[in-house]
Amino acid sequence: MSLPSFERAALIGIGLIGSSLARVLRRDSPRTAIVACARRAETLAAARRLEIADETTDDPAAAVEGADLVVVATPLSAYDAVGARMGPALRPGAIVTDVGSVKGAAVRALAPHIPERVHFVPGHPVAGTEHSGPESGFAELFRDRWCILTPLPEAAPEAVEKVTALWQAAGMRVATMDPAHHDKVLAMTSHLPHLIAYTIVGTATDLEESLKSEVIAFSAGGFRDFTRIAASDPVMWRDIFLNNREAVLEMLQRFSEDLTALQRAIRWGEGDVLFDRFTRTRAIRRSIIEAKQA
Amino acid sequence: MSLPSFERAALIGIGLIGSSLARVLRRDSPRTAIVACARRAETLAAARRLEIADETTDDPAAAVEGADLVVVATPLSAYDAVGARMGPALRPGAIVTDVGSVKGAAVRALAPHIPERVHFVPGHPVAGTEHSGPESGFAELFRDRWCILTPLPEAAPEAVEKVTALWQAAGMRVATMDPAHHDKVLAMTSHLPHLIAYTIVGTATDLEESLKSEVIAFSAGGFRDFTRIAASDPVMWRDIFLNNREAVLEMLQRFSEDLTALQRAIRWGEGDVLFDRFTRTRAIRRSIIEAKQA
Repeated sequence: MSLPSFERAALIGIGLIGSSLARVLRRDSPRTAIVACARRAETLAAARRLEIADETTDDPAAAVEGADLVVVATPLSAYDAVGARMGPALRPGAIVTDVGSVKGAAVRALAPHIPERVHFVPGHPVAGTEHSGPESGFAELFRDRWCILTPLPEAAPEAVEKVTALWQAAGMRVATMDPAHHDKVLAMTSHLPHLIAYTIVGTATDLEESLKSEVIAFSAGGFRDFTRIAASDPVMWRDIFLNNREAVLEMLQRFSEDLTALQRAIRWGEGDVLFDRFTRTRAIRRSIIEAKQA
Repeated sequence: MSLPSFERAALIGIGLIGSSLARVLRRDSPRTAIVACARRAETLAAARRLEIADETTDDPAAAVEGADLVVVATPLSAYDAVGARMGPALRPGAIVTDVGSVKGAAVRALAPHIPERVHFVPGHPVAGTEHSGPESGFAELFRDRWCILTPLPEAAPEAVEKVTALWQAAGMRVATMDPAHHDKVLAMTSHLPHLIAYTIVGTATDLEESLKSEVIAFSAGGFRDFTRIAASDPVMWRDIFLNNREAVLEMLQRFSEDLTALQRAIRWGEGDVLFDRFTRTRAIRRSIIEAKQA
């Protein structure tokens, strides 16, 4: 799928996702002018040094001026301020999309600021690493991953198609769903796993010193995978949990019940309960391999 | 470190670990005769087909006859029966070691069956994949991983040295510690992570059908790593939890308290608590990278 021709793309936020998208635009659409917007001067300097932006600014209003594509890629807590600042400067006919991990909150924060003749197509490219910042981006980040768009019922079909084509050009498969449904699915596949990884790594951090140093040395047996997940960007993840509270608490409640049941089985030596549970989970792994997500 | 010269190695259990060690012996010590022992005829047939055993038997007593090295690599629940059967057939001067993930239980189950002039050096190569069976083994499995030996105070130093040299030849770094301490460290680094992974994948398995299919499709955001861990061998893991009950319940209790604290922070919108916790966990990841375990 070839990239739609954008004249001027404003990337509000140029971290892992924003800078990876900039690299895709550079590679596949060299005539698109890229404006990078970030709060910190050193982030903007990095974007210039990496040559992934033609212009840089710390002002969202200046960034979106004349842009036909605007991608909001900041932490969720900045959305409302970004929206308020850029809203009046958006050009009629422009497409605004975002990459936030919670779509209900993204819509609530940005939609009120989008003028009538601008097209807002919320999106979530489900891709990432534990690294953050413009240096950590790479164009291949999105390849073979899913991007979920959550367009509102009134969205113009052409705008949805253009955003779809953008992410397909980046190598993604694109699905659309309702924002609330997206937030439930992601609470299970992404938010709860991150919460659990942060928790267990925190539990290890609090161990007595002698035990803790050995936990680090002998981390190969499963713990290591959790530390990678728990090294993800703290601001981004704080915002996700604050903004997807209901769905995360719901999934967490289910998880806690299931964990308590296994705890009880261990305490009472109920080997059959453990064996049955551990056998069922192998089937899900097979489904994921069949769905080519492994 | 070169492999000590063993004339005849009996591998009791020829799954992922046993068959990987057999491949190391084949590669580095072609004159060592390998006897593979397993309960199921098809496992023994696989060992012969893969040419990782010179002889096969389903009788531990026959397997250890004349062996100067015996490696017990069955699930923990088989240890007592294996010990009772092989004990009287062990040759004086032989070295018996094992690869079990819980050392207190391994010592309790095997030690009573080991005759006076046989050397018992319990061990745990901390390596593995989510695959099981003789076909899934490979000689490189152990490379750059830790092996923890938990010799009893009365162990002959030469026997400990030989087992150390065996695992070093397989590419491992070798540490020694007390069985109870090993079981605490592993409860945190391996057993608790597996329990949590099994739980969350189980929680997803129980979701309503519409949600569940999308959890599989969009599993890239963290959940996928858990499904890999939760695809590990159910019998081996049942036995680990039944045999390391006290240490696992202790670590699980700490984890549950920490998870409840984060749950509360999410419910009450305490962003600072979340941010602080998520920042501290990044430091552990750095320690692991520095310890070259990442």
